[in-house]
Amino acid sequence: MVNEKLVIIGSGPAAHTAAIYSGRAELSPLLFEGFMAGGVAAGGQLTTTNDVENFPGFPEGISGPLLMDKMREQSLRYGCRIVTKTISGIHINEKPFEPFVLNTADNEEYLADTIIIATGATAKTIELPNSATYWQKGISSCAVCDGALPIFRGKDLFVVGGGDSACEEALFLTKFAKMVYLVHRRNELRASKIMQRRVLGHDKIEVLWEHEITNVLGDEKVIKKVVLKKSEPSQVYEKAAGGLFFAIGHKPNTDFLGGKITLDKDGYIVTEKGSTKTNVLGIFAAGDVQDKKFRQAVTAAGTGCMAFMEAEEYLNTKDSK
Amino acid sequence: MVNEKLVIIGSGPAAHTAAIYSGRAELSPLLFEGFMAGGVAAGGQLTTTNDVENFPGFPEGISGPLLMDKMREQSLRYGCRIVTKTISGIHINEKPFEPFVLNTADNEEYLADTIIIATGATAKTIELPNSATYWQKGISSCAVCDGALPIFRGKDLFVVGGGDSACEEALFLTKFAKMVYLVHRRNELRASKIMQRRVLGHDKIEVLWEHEITNVLGDEKVIKKVVLKKSEPSQVYEKAAGGLFFAIGHKPNTDFLGGKITLDKDGYIVTEKGSTKTNVLGIFAAGDVQDKKFRQAVTAAGTGCMAFMEAEEYLNTKDSK
Repeated sequence: MVNEKLVIIGSGPAAHTAAIYSGRAELSPLLFEGFMAGGVAAGGQLTTTNDVENFPGFPEGISGPLLMDKMREQSLRYGCRIVTKTISGIHINEKPFEPFVLNTADNEEYLADTIIIATGATAKTIELPNSATYWQKGISSCAVCDGALPIFRGKDLFVVGGGDSACEEALFLTKFAKMVYLVHRRNELRASKIMQRRVLGHDKIEVLWEHEITNVLGDEKVIKKVVLKKSEPSQVYEKAAGGLFFAIGHKPNTDFLGGKITLDKDGYIVTEKGSTKTNVLGIFAAGDVQDKKFRQAVTAAGTGCMAFMEAEEYLNTKDSK
Repeated sequence: MVNEKLVIIGSGPAAHTAAIYSGRAELSPLLFEGFMAGGVAAGGQLTTTNDVENFPGFPEGISGPLLMDKMREQSLRYGCRIVTKTISGIHINEKPFEPFVLNTADNEEYLADTIIIATGATAKTIELPNSATYWQKGISSCAVCDGALPIFRGKDLFVVGGGDSACEEALFLTKFAKMVYLVHRRNELRASKIMQRRVLGHDKIEVLWEHEITNVLGDEKVIKKVVLKKSEPSQVYEKAAGGLFFAIGHKPNTDFLGGKITLDKDGYIVTEKGSTKTNVLGIFAAGDVQDKKFRQAVTAAGTGCMAFMEAEEYLNTKDSK
C-alpha cells in the first residue's frame, strides 16, 4: 500500500484551496471528493447556489458550480489527484508520527502521513412538497449569501427558525425586504435575550408564533406564496412571499470520524483558535466542518490554505524526527 | 460631518473582501485605499506580483494587479465608496460606542461608528543597484507565493536571511531548485534550533556564512547571476542564479495608529485568536497587518470577511444600546 504524504477529504473551497497550495508545494496530495457524501454532490454547498456575488475576484458574480469547477481544475493542474470515493473511517495509531489508515465506503484502505478534513456541513431544511422546484428560486438556507440578490428586494421574506442564527438572518434581511416574517413553531424564541430584543423591537420583523410552513407556491420560476399552518387555534392560510430562508441549523459532516477527533456538542470539529489543528497531531480541519460562525466560501478557502501550511510544518517536523 | 457606519482602511484582499460583504449588507462602507501608503500602490502587496497561481478560482492564474482590479470593481459594484487618501491617525473616544475620528494625511476629518484596519505589511528588501530591473523577474520576497513558478525550476536559488522564515523559505525552495544558497551576514543563524538542524542537514541547501548580496545581473528579462561579498577574508565574486528571495521580514503598516491599538513586539496588531477583534471595542483588524504566520491573499480575504461579520455584529449591538 502506498503511503500518501497528504490526504485531503472534502470537495468545497477549503479542500480545494488546501489542494492547490499543497499541489504547488509538490506534496502530491490525494483528495477524496466523496460520492454524494453528506447528501451533496462533489463541490459542496456552493453547488446548490446559483449566484455567488461575494467571492472576491469575481465582480460580475459567478455560479456556485462554475466556481467549484474552476477550483477543482486548479487543484488538478498543480498535481492533486482526485478520487470520487467517500471516506468512511479513519484509524489513528497510538504512536505519534505513524501513518493514519483511511477506509473508503467501498472498503479500500489508504495510508497517509497527514490528513486535512474539509468535509463541510449541510444546511438543515424542512422538506416541503414543492421544495425541489423552488430551491434557489426563492428558497435558500443562507441569508448572508443570498439575501442581497435582486429577487428578494422589496419582497415579503420568511425565515424559519427560532435560534440566534434565525434572528440574525431575519435582521440581515430587513435591509432588503418589505417585511420579514420569522416563522417559529413555539411561543418563545431559543435565541439569546439580546437577539430576541432586537428582533422583537424591529418594525420590519413580525414573529409568527406557533406557525409552520407547509408548502411554497409559485410560477415555476420563483416562489410567490408560502402556505402557513397555525397550531392554536388550528388554521391553514397562504401569504404572499418573495423568499423563504431556512435557519434551523447545519449538520457538520463528521459522523464518519467515529469519536476519535474531538467534536463540540453540535458535532463540529474542535480546532485550536486561530489554527486548523485538531486534538490529533497530524490531522487538521478546515472550512465549515470546524466553523459554525463565519461559514462563507472565502473564510473556508482561507482556512484551507492555513491547513496546508500547518500540515506542511507538521510533515517537516516529522521528517526531522 | 457625516458619521460613517463603517470605514475600511486598506486596499488589499482583506480590505476589499470586507468592502464587498459590507456593501452587499447595505452598510455603505467608506474605504480609504491610501495614496502610496506603506510605499505601495493601492492594491497592496499583490500589485507587485506577476502571477498569482494559488488564489482559488483562477486555474490559469491571474496577475496580481488584475486580481486587485477585479476586487476593487466588485467593492464599487456593491456600493463601497473608495477614497484615494491615506489615513494618518485615529482618535478613540474614552466612552464606548462613541464614533471614532479619523484624520487623513491632508488634514481632513471623518467620523466612523466602526473601523476595519487592513493596511497590510510591506516586505523588507535590500536595495541593490539592479533591484528595480529584476523585481519579479527573479527577485521575490515570498517563496511560498512565487517559488513554484517555472522560471525558478532547476535553478540555483538564493535566499537572504537567517531567521525562521528564511529557513522555511530555503526548505520550501528545495522542492524546485537545483541548489539553494542561504546568504547570511553572520556566522550563525537566528532561526530556532529545529529549523537550523533541518537547513544545515539538507543536502540541497548550502549556507553562505558572512556573505552579502551586493547586486544581481541578468539579460534584462530575468536574473542570471548574483554578486556576493564575503567579509572574512574579504572577497567579491559572482555566482549563477535563477532567483533571489528576500526573507528578512515584513513591516506591518501600523505606525499611523500611534499606540492606541495594542501591537505585538514586531508591530503587528494583536487580535483575539480566531477573531478580528482588537483591544478597542468597535475596531477590527484583518489581513497581514495582524497576521505574521499565513500572509496569503486568500487567508487575508478570509479575515476580511470575518471582520465584516464581526463589525456588523458590533453595529447591531451598538444600535440596540
